[in-house]
Amino acid sequence: LRRRESIPEFAVVLVGLKNEGNVGAVARVMKNFGFNDLRLVNCALGEEANKRAMHAGDILASAKIFSDFESSIKDLDIVVGTSGVDSGAEKNYLRHAISPEELLKKYARFRGKVGLVFGREDFGLLNTELERCDLLVKIDTSPVYPIMNVSHAVAVLLYVLRRKSKKVASRKPEAMEISELHLAFGELLDLIGYPEHRKKNAKVMFRRLVGRACITRLETTMLIGVFRRCAKSRGGFDEHKGEH
Amino acid sequence: LRRRESIPEFAVVLVGLKNEGNVGAVARVMKNFGFNDLRLVNCALGEEANKRAMHAGDILASAKIFSDFESSIKDLDIVVGTSGVDSGAEKNYLRHAISPEELLKKYARFRGKVGLVFGREDFGLLNTELERCDLLVKIDTSPVYPIMNVSHAVAVLLYVLRRKSKKVASRKPEAMEISELHLAFGELLDLIGYPEHRKKNAKVMFRRLVGRACITRLETTMLIGVFRRCAKSRGGFDEHKGEH
Repeated sequence: LRRRESIPEFAVVLVGLKNEGNVGAVARVMKNFGFNDLRLVNCALGEEANKRAMHAGDILASAKIFSDFESSIKDLDIVVGTSGVDSGAEKNYLRHAISPEELLKKYARFRGKVGLVFGREDFGLLNTELERCDLLVKIDTSPVYPIMNVSHAVAVLLYVLRRKSKKVASRKPEAMEISELHLAFGELLDLIGYPEHRKKNAKVMFRRLVGRACITRLETTMLIGVFRRCAKSRGGFDEHKGEH
Repeated sequence: LRRRESIPEFAVVLVGLKNEGNVGAVARVMKNFGFNDLRLVNCALGEEANKRAMHAGDILASAKIFSDFESSIKDLDIVVGTSGVDSGAEKNYLRHAISPEELLKKYARFRGKVGLVFGREDFGLLNTELERCDLLVKIDTSPVYPIMNVSHAVAVLLYVLRRKSKKVASRKPEAMEISELHLAFGELLDLIGYPEHRKKNAKVMFRRLVGRACITRLETTMLIGVFRRCAKSRGGFDEHKGEH
């Protein structure tokens, strides 16, 4: 019963799409490639969406509706943002993205739930949303016209990811551990008095590093242990001496 | 000046699309992936196409318009059909298709012009059109809902093909030689008195075999030589004796 492959489950999260035709087109291509977990955050929805979904009305009908991004991703182990613009260099770590094939390679054997997040037709994902992503994916496009229709971007990404995810894997809940790791890292920053104005960037950088590494459960547990141990020893022997 | 890589040029041929929004969406994704040779055979075209093309209006404006399929492909070296339905087995050679990745592997170093043909939203390509194709490509989809939106299919195929075709190669005219090969094969069938009702199938099978093999110029010349030589010797020494 538990002999299924250890491959991730994928959810498609659409954020702020104004054109409901695009929402329907995404539902259709999800069904074409065997995906079904659709989440809509402030997206247009109606008759045109149903029309464009063609025979994927069931995907639309069972889509989960959210009014804020945070709630839509809270059960996900890994959140993958998609970016239409490529920073080119790693200078701007916030925008540094990998290819769909690299994502497949990293996460093909990941036991958990991976969210693929696509943003607004005009502005894509906001910085606050990008910051929450564990890693970013960029589809290689022509510099002459890099901005793809959102349903085309979904089609390409799901096509690449589909090839090794024909069966839906049994899920091992790693989400709690990874979020515990980020919590532990944040607590550590607090405790060591890391400059307030640099904390956010540090957290995002760490999140991305963990995301790109496709961290294992053992590594997560180990890192949490290390961070907690750091915090404890500082709290026990430094400025927080005496509090315990 | 001639040091560019030997890679094929691609043309996208749309046949009988009724929805002009799809035509516009195809133009957009072509520009996203750096392709520009669009050919339209009996397709709808108008304001909605322009709207959906977004910043790829130039691709639409320079599209070549044809009223029959044969004229649209006559300058192409290789014609690749796309099929939404997979026969599954090689039983039906007419429908036997390879994957986009296999196509890339076979034709990455081909010096010539490759046409990618996409058919009607409802019926796809007709049998007469499929027969003219040198090989077929099928995008791996869910059996539950295999029929993709045509612009999604274009997006996936161009994404896969794009990765090794960043520069447009200088073209070597192999088209004439390959069509000469098929002509020679047909003449051979005629000359050997091949059963009339099986000729068409034989020609299609040969066309597909040549297509899948990604035939080289040397091989083409050699085969033409062989066929012509066969025809000549039969004509010279058998039932056509005395005609020369």
